[in-house]
Amino acid sequence: MKNDSSGASLAEALRVEIRALRPGARLPSSRALMERHRVSPVTVTRAIGQLAAEGLVVTRPGSGAFVAERPRPRADPPDFGWQAVALGDRTVDASTVRELVSPVPDGMIRLSGGYLHASLQPSRALATAMGRAARRPDAWEAPPPAGLAGLRTWFARATGPDLTPDDVTVTGGGQQSLATVLRALLPPGSPLLVESPTYPGVLALARMIGLQPVPVPVDTDGLRPDLLAEAFGVTGARAVYCQPTLHNPTGAVMPSQRRERVLAVARAAGAFVVEDDYARHFVAEPVPPPLVTADTEGRVVHIASLTKVTAPSVRIAGVIARGPVAERIRSAQLVTDFFPARPLQEAVLELVGAPGWTRHLAAVRTALTARRDALLTAVARELGAAPRRPSGGLHAWVPLPAGTDDRAVAEAAARAGVRVSAGRPYFPAEADGPYARLSWGAAASEAEIAEGVRRLAGVLP
Amino acid sequence: MKNDSSGASLAEALRVEIRALRPGARLPSSRALMERHRVSPVTVTRAIGQLAAEGLVVTRPGSGAFVAERPRPRADPPDFGWQAVALGDRTVDASTVRELVSPVPDGMIRLSGGYLHASLQPSRALATAMGRAARRPDAWEAPPPAGLAGLRTWFARATGPDLTPDDVTVTGGGQQSLATVLRALLPPGSPLLVESPTYPGVLALARMIGLQPVPVPVDTDGLRPDLLAEAFGVTGARAVYCQPTLHNPTGAVMPSQRRERVLAVARAAGAFVVEDDYARHFVAEPVPPPLVTADTEGRVVHIASLTKVTAPSVRIAGVIARGPVAERIRSAQLVTDFFPARPLQEAVLELVGAPGWTRHLAAVRTALTARRDALLTAVARELGAAPRRPSGGLHAWVPLPAGTDDRAVAEAAARAGVRVSAGRPYFPAEADGPYARLSWGAAASEAEIAEGVRRLAGVLP
Repeated sequence: MKNDSSGASLAEALRVEIRALRPGARLPSSRALMERHRVSPVTVTRAIGQLAAEGLVVTRPGSGAFVAERPRPRADPPDFGWQAVALGDRTVDASTVRELVSPVPDGMIRLSGGYLHASLQPSRALATAMGRAARRPDAWEAPPPAGLAGLRTWFARATGPDLTPDDVTVTGGGQQSLATVLRALLPPGSPLLVESPTYPGVLALARMIGLQPVPVPVDTDGLRPDLLAEAFGVTGARAVYCQPTLHNPTGAVMPSQRRERVLAVARAAGAFVVEDDYARHFVAEPVPPPLVTADTEGRVVHIASLTKVTAPSVRIAGVIARGPVAERIRSAQLVTDFFPARPLQEAVLELVGAPGWTRHLAAVRTALTARRDALLTAVARELGAAPRRPSGGLHAWVPLPAGTDDRAVAEAAARAGVRVSAGRPYFPAEADGPYARLSWGAAASEAEIAEGVRRLAGVLP
Repeated sequence: MKNDSSGASLAEALRVEIRALRPGARLPSSRALMERHRVSPVTVTRAIGQLAAEGLVVTRPGSGAFVAERPRPRADPPDFGWQAVALGDRTVDASTVRELVSPVPDGMIRLSGGYLHASLQPSRALATAMGRAARRPDAWEAPPPAGLAGLRTWFARATGPDLTPDDVTVTGGGQQSLATVLRALLPPGSPLLVESPTYPGVLALARMIGLQPVPVPVDTDGLRPDLLAEAFGVTGARAVYCQPTLHNPTGAVMPSQRRERVLAVARAAGAFVVEDDYARHFVAEPVPPPLVTADTEGRVVHIASLTKVTAPSVRIAGVIARGPVAERIRSAQLVTDFFPARPLQEAVLELVGAPGWTRHLAAVRTALTARRDALLTAVARELGAAPRRPSGGLHAWVPLPAGTDDRAVAEAAARAGVRVSAGRPYFPAEADGPYARLSWGAAASEAEIAEGVRRLAGVLP
């Protein structure tokens, strides 16, 4: 329980306690709660009031708050068997996504996930911007369906000189962008070419909406154009999903010439390129501009999320597309999600337009570079491995000893107090070997990163 | 331009002005902007700074701010023809959804849409709650993937006595809930039974994700169980979407006995019932409890949105489901959207837990009842029509003279200064006659409602 000025946070803690108590049990006194949680009397009153409103506690003036009777259990245990028939054999595998967004237990070191540690997040600037945004007279009205004009302008300017606000649709984050774009581009049943390995979230999503991910291998320069051409030919696919800059998980950066070849191959196939530019703000060394800036025919649909370079709850991204597909993407976004909450859009617009924004980006890049070097040094020392050194980003792709089961390694590592990502879920089909993906963005410090790698080394054969 | 303490709002207004100016043109002086927009010097400086950061203006110390050069046009006009081939013949029809969420021009009266007028929104309480939520130490971290425990508890308690927080998944609003639920329940290509008429947003969504909406007529008690049984038999459908309480658009409330029959029919068909409970908070006269409370076998998937009873940008809803389908819904939500931003969840939790919440609900109900009566009185007087008087809600379903083209009426009404919804888009297939849906929630006042109906009367034959 963090020390906090709001009753909602105290209420949240008390809900957990209440579950462990029997109905009628008395809650600690207001005084005890004030001391234990270091909060004011007002905060305690607000928290208890909220729990009473929810029916979790009953208050008796003069004697205190008591755990309420629980809802009576249903007479018969429910029989859900019919659901298995109705639902059929489709499943939705959210395990890899859940791992990305779930917190780690106390004491466990996090070398997984794609979010910045709290100490690297611009929380204060966000709080100020959001406080201001939420108080405006029209704060809670609908924003323009495609997003605030200022935010669309910012995304266009931040991405490339020829892009305009009309090319941008604001969405509720990178994953929602991906869902919208894939649904807009491809009918159910279509193949979707993806890098192998690739971001597991795109695999889970594609399968859920009825697309068939088809792997195309990457090398140290990213997606292989020769095999991409072959895959288009074999499958008749109309789209390829890729991360040309700091590819997840290998960290490869596609050189300019390779980018041109990928665009040419897509052109020859009459296909779209979905460019997931998740790592643009994490570039430590110069890299080519985004694919979309070299695109003159609306071939590239570009996804630029602001979540990774800020904080997990900044659920805002921009999708950039030109030509008829832009209208389809905008319509698809509107039909499935309407629009991201206006105060969030306003707060993000203020954040990226403020003088502190470039300082934030510079600070994050500096911190991540130091963390990357700490992680790679520890990997060399503890694991005797020398993975590729990415030109920035958030993670390294570490080969494990031949014959290792990478999922078993990740499980053993978790028992030893460090969360790493097994490489297996990153492959759309067979893996080309055992890997672990080690992230340096989510840990608390360089010392913690080094300790995490030590713990991982301890479970390797 | 509203008077506002923040520079972002001024910047938004200036962006529109800048588009109309040529590059190099000088912006009004700071003093002129302060006077015209009634803002402080700090606000002007912040706004200009933001526009400069976006590259829209260039500032020259001592002489002012000037419109920047526009991006040079591309050498060749782009040829997007290939996209038509790649995209094929699918389209996404967002027109009805766009109408729901788009603002109306100045001077036009709004008798359309499902949101409350700004004067009925709890904007101040939301601003306070959001300001507090955004400042908490963990505000911007990821919330639990299924939603804050307190918010799930609140949704469960607010819906029925036997429901638990584990039955609830928090989503980013009603439309997103619908997208998640339909995707989780049905594979692409499946039939989906819907009321006829029904909410156009479900039709657009179902078609986009590859489902086939199959109409089942409603009568004055809502969905007809006899025809529902027949539709299940003919199509083999595994789900029906319905609004048993204050059906949109007819306003019908399904009586208890009818509810039991609908559940029995769904049981016999081995199918799910998706209960869209959008109007629960707008009930002016007693109605039966939600379908989900009579469900003992996980048959009903219940969608409870908080947007309509608060404000358009409160993008928070709860999906209630039990049995294996609950896990599938939770996974589907995670894979397509991750989670709604934590500050928004915290702010909403504080809002609904505060003592002012029940006062807000009561005030909204009182205001809407008066508005309903004003609208129905005006309709009787001006149109000579006597539509059913709904037991609450936001709208009336008004039959137009036989032979009228309801879309043409809506267009003529818009030209005459009132936005109403044509009935046609509410029908999955053929319409049973011409209608207009008139909403009393979004107009500014009862006087405006009466004037809107007068304007509509003026365009009728």
